[in-house]
Amino acid sequence: MIPVLEPKLKQGSKIGILGGGQLGRMLALAGAKLGFDVHIFEPELGCPAGRVAAQCVTAPWDDLEALSRFAAGVDVLTFEFENVPATSLAHVAQIKPIRPGIKSLELTQDRLIEKAFINELGLTTAPYAKIDNLQELQRAVIQFGPSGILKTRRFGYDGKGQVRIDATSDLTQIWDDIKGQAWIFEGFVDFAFEVSVIFARGHDGAIAAFDVTQNIHQNGILHTSVVPSSLNKAQGAAALLQASIIARALDHVGVLAIEFFVSKDGDLIVNEIAPRVHNSGHWTMDGCNVCQFQQHIRAVAGWPLGDPTRHSAQIEMTNLIGDDVDNWQSLAAETGAFLHLYGKRQARAGRKMGHVNRVKAHT
Amino acid sequence: MIPVLEPKLKQGSKIGILGGGQLGRMLALAGAKLGFDVHIFEPELGCPAGRVAAQCVTAPWDDLEALSRFAAGVDVLTFEFENVPATSLAHVAQIKPIRPGIKSLELTQDRLIEKAFINELGLTTAPYAKIDNLQELQRAVIQFGPSGILKTRRFGYDGKGQVRIDATSDLTQIWDDIKGQAWIFEGFVDFAFEVSVIFARGHDGAIAAFDVTQNIHQNGILHTSVVPSSLNKAQGAAALLQASIIARALDHVGVLAIEFFVSKDGDLIVNEIAPRVHNSGHWTMDGCNVCQFQQHIRAVAGWPLGDPTRHSAQIEMTNLIGDDVDNWQSLAAETGAFLHLYGKRQARAGRKMGHVNRVKAHT
Repeated sequence: MIPVLEPKLKQGSKIGILGGGQLGRMLALAGAKLGFDVHIFEPELGCPAGRVAAQCVTAPWDDLEALSRFAAGVDVLTFEFENVPATSLAHVAQIKPIRPGIKSLELTQDRLIEKAFINELGLTTAPYAKIDNLQELQRAVIQFGPSGILKTRRFGYDGKGQVRIDATSDLTQIWDDIKGQAWIFEGFVDFAFEVSVIFARGHDGAIAAFDVTQNIHQNGILHTSVVPSSLNKAQGAAALLQASIIARALDHVGVLAIEFFVSKDGDLIVNEIAPRVHNSGHWTMDGCNVCQFQQHIRAVAGWPLGDPTRHSAQIEMTNLIGDDVDNWQSLAAETGAFLHLYGKRQARAGRKMGHVNRVKAHT
Repeated sequence: MIPVLEPKLKQGSKIGILGGGQLGRMLALAGAKLGFDVHIFEPELGCPAGRVAAQCVTAPWDDLEALSRFAAGVDVLTFEFENVPATSLAHVAQIKPIRPGIKSLELTQDRLIEKAFINELGLTTAPYAKIDNLQELQRAVIQFGPSGILKTRRFGYDGKGQVRIDATSDLTQIWDDIKGQAWIFEGFVDFAFEVSVIFARGHDGAIAAFDVTQNIHQNGILHTSVVPSSLNKAQGAAALLQASIIARALDHVGVLAIEFFVSKDGDLIVNEIAPRVHNSGHWTMDGCNVCQFQQHIRAVAGWPLGDPTRHSAQIEMTNLIGDDVDNWQSLAAETGAFLHLYGKRQARAGRKMGHVNRVKAHT
C-alpha cells in the first residue's frame, strides 16, 4: 500500500531529507522558517545539513534498517540530490510519501535514460550514443564527433566522470583507462550560452517558475548565474514550456531544474534535468519573495506555491569554490552582496563552500 | 582573566546562545546562513531554537556545571533575552567572551535600575517610583497618579507582572494581592503612539540602525509593527541619537531595541530598553538586505555590520498570537505576505506562534 499524505502539513510536522550537503542545509533552513522539523539522512559524519536539523541520522545508503527508522520518524520525505540509490528510495517510499516521486529520480539518474526520455517528449538533446565498449565509442565518434564528451551514465556531477574527446584523442588509450563503467558519448553542441529554468510544480499540478538564469561554468563546475538572461521573451516562454512538459511527464512535485544550451540560432537544447533544487537557483534566495528552497518545502508539504516574482533589477550569483571562500571578510563588508556560507570544515579544491548574491535594485 | 575573542570569527566557529525561544531560533538560522555552528542552552525541553541548532543543552539556569561545559564548547556567547540570571551570565563570562557584555544585561534586568540609568543620561522616562510597601504605593499614586501601572521590577514581559491603577483602584486590596515582590510604579504617559529603534552596535563602536518602527500593542503584547513610522525626519534622528547614547553608555555589542512613547507634542519618552533582538524588528527579515538577526550574529562574531537599508515602500509585521496561527493556510497563499512560523507544539493563549510580514514594494 502506498502511503497517503495529508494534503497540507502543518507546522511542527517532520520533513525527512535524504542527503545532507549544502542543498539539504538550505532546504532545512527554509523548512525551519515555516515551522517544520527537518530530519536529515546522510552517510557522511558532520554534514552541513545535520548541523541545522532537528535530527540527523548517519548511516550508509544501503542500511535499510536505518532508512526504515528514519522514514518512520517523519511525515514526508524528499531528497537533496538525484544520486540517492533508487533501491534506497524505493524502500522508504513504501513507508512514507516521497516528493518528488521515484519516477523523477529513476528517469534522471542515468544520462542515457534521461536523454531518451527527453527525446520521446519531442524535445532536443545533444546527439548521443550508449558506450559499453571501444567499438561503440569508435562508431559514435565517427557518427557524432570527433568533438564530444564521454560521460559516465550515473553518479557524475560537477565535471566528475567526464572525458573530453577531440580529433587528436587516442580512443583505444582512453577506453583502456576508463572501461568498467557504463558511458555515454555526447556530441559537441556549438552553443552560444547556457541557461536554466528553475521552477516548482505543486501537488495540484500548479507551476511557479523563476526567471530564466544564464550560467557560466568553469572546469565543469557552475561559476556564475545571472538574471535576467540574454533570452528574449519568446525564447524564455519556450524554455518554460519545455520545462513544464518535462515536469508533467515526470509527474514531478517539488522544484525541478532544466539546463539548456542555447544555439547561435537561438534554438534550445536540453542539456540536463536535475529533479531538485539547483545551484543555478541560489540567486532566488535574495532575488525573490519566495526562494527555491522554500518553494520546494511548500510543494513537499502540500502548501500552495509562493510568488516567484523577481524583485530586483539584476542578480548575479557567484559560487565560492575551494579557496574562494578565504575572501569572506571582504565579501561580508561589500554593500549589496549577500553572503551564504555552508559551514564546511575544509576548503578542498573544487568544493562548493558558499555563494554570494550581488543584487542591483530597481532604480 | 577575561577571555579574549579573535576579532573576526570565521565560518565553522561555534556561537553559543543562552535561551532557546523563537528569538534564539531566528538567531540560529541567521548564524547558519553565515556558516556558523550554533549551540543553544535552554532549561525547557524541545525548545524552538534547539531544533535548528548543531547542539542543544537542556539544563536549568543554576546548573553551573552544565553552563561551564556549554561555554567551553563554543567560541563566543550571546543571549536571546534579558532574563537570563545575571549570576549564570557572570559565570559563563569567565569562560568565554560574551556579547553583549554583562553591563547591558545588568542595567536592563531591573526596571528601576534601567530607568535611573536612562535619566542619568539626560533622557526622559515616565515618572516612576520604587514600591516596596503599601505606603510607597500610596505616596507614588498621590505624586504621579492616579493613573499608572504597577510593574514587577524584574522578569516581566508581554504584559505579565503588571497591574493597572486608576482613580477607582483599591490600593490596599491590590497590595495585599501582589506583595512579596519588588515593584515599580510608572505614572501614566499620555502618548500619541509608540515607536522603537532597532539597531546594532559593532565591536568597533560602529552603529547601523534600521528605520524607526511604529508599534501597536494589544493586551500588553506587541501586535503590529509598521515602517515607515509617523515620526518626521527630525524626530527619527532624535530617536536614533538617544538610542546611540544608550548603546554607548552600555558599551553594547550586538542588536539593541529602544522603545519610545511619542507624546502628542512630539516628545520622545524612553519606555524600555531590550538589550537584544526584538519582536518589533521582525519586519527587517523581509524588508532589509540584512535583518536584525544576521546583524546581531555579525556583531557577536566581530564581523562588519551589514547594510540596514529598507528596500520596500512599506512593511507591516503582525504577530500570530495563540489561535491566530490557525490561519496559516490563507497566510501561506497570500501574495506579498512572508510567513514565519516558530515550530511551537502548542498554541496557548498569548503565546507568540509566528509572524507575518506584509511588504508593499516601491512603485
